[in-house]
Amino acid sequence: MEYINGGICAPRGFVASGISCGIRKKGKKDLALVVSQKIAATAGVYTKNLVKGAPIIVTQKHIANGYSRAIIANSGNANTCNDNGIEIAEEMCELVEKYTGVNSSDVVVASTGVIGQKLSIDPIAAGMPELVCSLGRNSADAAEAIMTTDTAKKEVAVQFQVGGVTAKMGAIAKGSGMIHPNMATMLVFVTTDAAISPIMLQYSLNFCIQDTFNMISVDRDTSTNDTMTVMANGMAGNTEIISEGADFDAFSAALYELCLNLSRRIAKDGEGATKLLECIVTGAKDKNDARIIAKSVICSPLLKCAMFGSDANWGRVLCAIGYAGAEVDIDKVNVGFKSDAGEIYVCKNGRGIEFSEEKAKEILNCDEIVIEVSLGNGEAFASAFGCDLTYDYVKINGDYRS
Amino acid sequence: MEYINGGICAPRGFVASGISCGIRKKGKKDLALVVSQKIAATAGVYTKNLVKGAPIIVTQKHIANGYSRAIIANSGNANTCNDNGIEIAEEMCELVEKYTGVNSSDVVVASTGVIGQKLSIDPIAAGMPELVCSLGRNSADAAEAIMTTDTAKKEVAVQFQVGGVTAKMGAIAKGSGMIHPNMATMLVFVTTDAAISPIMLQYSLNFCIQDTFNMISVDRDTSTNDTMTVMANGMAGNTEIISEGADFDAFSAALYELCLNLSRRIAKDGEGATKLLECIVTGAKDKNDARIIAKSVICSPLLKCAMFGSDANWGRVLCAIGYAGAEVDIDKVNVGFKSDAGEIYVCKNGRGIEFSEEKAKEILNCDEIVIEVSLGNGEAFASAFGCDLTYDYVKINGDYRS
Repeated sequence: MEYINGGICAPRGFVASGISCGIRKKGKKDLALVVSQKIAATAGVYTKNLVKGAPIIVTQKHIANGYSRAIIANSGNANTCNDNGIEIAEEMCELVEKYTGVNSSDVVVASTGVIGQKLSIDPIAAGMPELVCSLGRNSADAAEAIMTTDTAKKEVAVQFQVGGVTAKMGAIAKGSGMIHPNMATMLVFVTTDAAISPIMLQYSLNFCIQDTFNMISVDRDTSTNDTMTVMANGMAGNTEIISEGADFDAFSAALYELCLNLSRRIAKDGEGATKLLECIVTGAKDKNDARIIAKSVICSPLLKCAMFGSDANWGRVLCAIGYAGAEVDIDKVNVGFKSDAGEIYVCKNGRGIEFSEEKAKEILNCDEIVIEVSLGNGEAFASAFGCDLTYDYVKINGDYRS
Repeated sequence: MEYINGGICAPRGFVASGISCGIRKKGKKDLALVVSQKIAATAGVYTKNLVKGAPIIVTQKHIANGYSRAIIANSGNANTCNDNGIEIAEEMCELVEKYTGVNSSDVVVASTGVIGQKLSIDPIAAGMPELVCSLGRNSADAAEAIMTTDTAKKEVAVQFQVGGVTAKMGAIAKGSGMIHPNMATMLVFVTTDAAISPIMLQYSLNFCIQDTFNMISVDRDTSTNDTMTVMANGMAGNTEIISEGADFDAFSAALYELCLNLSRRIAKDGEGATKLLECIVTGAKDKNDARIIAKSVICSPLLKCAMFGSDANWGRVLCAIGYAGAEVDIDKVNVGFKSDAGEIYVCKNGRGIEFSEEKAKEILNCDEIVIEVSLGNGEAFASAFGCDLTYDYVKINGDYRS
């Protein structure tokens, strides 16, 4: 497997575009379209928030048969908690049919932005000609058009061997705040030219998100619009994957790599964040305990503030382990901090040990920090990804709507 | 029942003191002592964090028989996650015995501050003569000596009728950050001269905290040192309360009032907070759902930021209701904001309604905000208390140890 350029348009048969149609202010891109030349097996995962964006309801209906051919997505308005949300989402799909010929029931639709303000179809309808004319290998434009408070565009692609052919897989994603996914974060769209059945595609997706998107958190706020879909159009020419085996593993390895790559980037681009935090828990009784503890540590606001201040306040790590709700013998817990500047142990067997504050500061001044926790309680391990809590998080969210 | 002065020394037979012995910098008070003239029935509740401060272990042992006579507490160091924590906590109790004659096994001990740094007994031993000489009706000094990042002293007292006599109840408390109690927040010490058996005292305490201390959150970080004790020395002369009935109800009403008063003040004094947030949930299926939802709303970092910015971003309220984990029909949910400046409804039946942004701003500019949520799903209700998330929270916690 190797990283390649092209993002969501890297796989054969996918084109994309992204334009500014006027939903967001200041001429920011706000409308994205992705179209596959051929119908594609499609799997999706969505927020588990009881409040669900209207586009999710429509998307679930449209891909219930396991297939889709296009994605339309807007930023600047979540089309959630509105009277006419479903209608608007359906109208967006019908506009895609009108301008591209793709059947509206084969369209994935997604919206992200403010909740509870009506989304007008007018700017979208007016923007459709430009959006369709711009279709091409424009993954970057589409990635930009789904950003809200993101500071960095997120696209990625890999190629990998499957069934004797070279297949490609690409993705775009957005996510920065309201990040505590219970399956996927905000919007992630994956395309691939590998051939795989809808059932195996969903199976692979469910597996890949457990240790990637389900292990990131910016602020423990689970969004109403989280949506991740994967479209596989089969144009790589491999024999369709219809069961477990070497081909399925190769496919899943590629999807996992993409998920992990984007998860880290979303966590690092957390609202106001200056640092990516990764908590690696080892020696847990089972996988579930490892995950719970890793997530509890990277979610602690106090630890997040300490990391912002490059303060090796390991007591907060122990505290977050203690309230995680997992089975832990605190007297066996070791804690360390690691980054490009080195590694330092600060707590052994649940007790503080002597360490150089200067060295710790140096390690924590880097922009990617690993918090190492060993539990001495078994063989299971897990990683969770988050970011520091900064003045800018407060600033961004103090007056988001204006 | 009426509020009176005197704090923890209001009840007959209780004296207190608070001094600076040198654990904290800049001559801040850091050592408190409370002594009852008579042995007192004593109940306690403690953090449910698996990481427990050493003083909690010692206190639990000392009041296992249902009685105590004194409290010693320090700020500036939590005496938690240290090799010698238990020894130090025991030595603190022995110092109380040496200087006051109260048996060391009748002493409640508590510490609050940084986790994982050894607590030296030396400044405490050196401070004991002054601490004991200062004993008197000095509730305010004791309240000050247990503060860490608190900006306001917290003491309160009431008098109430029980068994034909007037009894008094007083308390001091500290708590500002790492506030997400699973029973009580940080340190709360209550004294009363009412007579009540240890068992009924514990029963009353367990009841009173459910809707008070268990319903506040500053940052979802559950401390390692949360401790709340109630001492009842019986000097009011009422017949000892040994069962449920009118006397028990009168006693519990007084204790409840104190808990509620201090809970609100602790939430309002949350680290960096400028506003007290109260979420009142009505129309829930059952009490548990009401509590879960109220707490989810006041815990949402995004809503906390919006309240700091006086932004009526009710979508974040709905979002937090949606991921609370309770049974909710979103289409029946109404949301409003209320304060001294008025009341405004912003969401009916899960949909946004027209409202004056100007009026909303005016309401949210006050320093005590009520977020009203009605679920239309039953008769149960609950309130939760929290505060806004501000730049100062980040500042305070970015470098807490230095």
